[in-house]
Amino acid sequence: MSQIERTMSSQSIYEGRILNLRVDTVEMEGKKYTKREIVEHDPAVCILALTDEGKILMVRQFRKPVDQELFELPAGLVEVDEEPVKAALRELEEETGYYAKKCEYIGEFFTSPGFCNEKIYLFLAEDLEKKEQKLDDFENIAVEEITLDEALKQIKFGDIVDAKTIIGLLLYKNLRG
Amino acid sequence: MSQIERTMSSQSIYEGRILNLRVDTVEMEGKKYTKREIVEHDPAVCILALTDEGKILMVRQFRKPVDQELFELPAGLVEVDEEPVKAALRELEEETGYYAKKCEYIGEFFTSPGFCNEKIYLFLAEDLEKKEQKLDDFENIAVEEITLDEALKQIKFGDIVDAKTIIGLLLYKNLRG
Repeated sequence: MSQIERTMSSQSIYEGRILNLRVDTVEMEGKKYTKREIVEHDPAVCILALTDEGKILMVRQFRKPVDQELFELPAGLVEVDEEPVKAALRELEEETGYYAKKCEYIGEFFTSPGFCNEKIYLFLAEDLEKKEQKLDDFENIAVEEITLDEALKQIKFGDIVDAKTIIGLLLYKNLRG
Repeated sequence: MSQIERTMSSQSIYEGRILNLRVDTVEMEGKKYTKREIVEHDPAVCILALTDEGKILMVRQFRKPVDQELFELPAGLVEVDEEPVKAALRELEEETGYYAKKCEYIGEFFTSPGFCNEKIYLFLAEDLEKKEQKLDDFENIAVEEITLDEALKQIKFGDIVDAKTIIGLLLYKNLRG
């Protein structure tokens, strides 16, 4: 059945700040060769954080690649040698100003494994304590709180269109029963 | 609030078969400038196809970017000037050998809008008719059928880790009530 593809050669095209691009020549079953364009991207974390009132923290930000403002769960890249749960706590605090006393792993997934190795770890954060939003100079993020029901409606009506956010919300709905 | 980022210049790094890479210099609020690394990727379709027995068609294939075999819903790229629903019917037939007499749009999402413009359109396909699998030379895909309950268990236990597949299955579960 499905076979491993063996790397025969690998050409680096670009090494950047948040991603690298390479083109691999691979051997498939039957001595067939093809090229695979592969984006290397650091792993990321995504956090569904619940306030004491049971609302979910969301962030609204302009996303240049799609040239529109999106409504997302807080998220960010895992730093080198950082544990995903630490990254989740750090990113939540940086983007929303909330520190979570409880942060539980609820799953992980690849965002687009046909061309990219990006993996996102998903966390459920609770017992929040208000501190201060600490955005970097090139982030412009507005924080909002919504109920799960509102969020599910926004998925249904196409107002939430970010994959990690849809997964986080639907998995949480399933967890909660 | 979140602000638009205006493109000041755009540098093409790579133009490939399934993706392009460019680096934009953007102006943010307050005359701040930064660079955005952006992968351009054609839109894609993903199909949740139900057999007459109510089972879901899944495909198992090796994914070079993550160096592992993944268990996914059938999917593929939308061709130039092709309507997404046509792409869904075409990809379903190519990958699984099934033609669907009914194919309904159920949603769309961006896979990773922090660096990439890829959008996936999701369809629910029913009334299947067995024809012939038509893989291209560089696809190696095994088709399997599973129940929704099995699929949800595989999400829970981390055996299904592909974002589009998780979204398709969870949205379908919600639709079905």
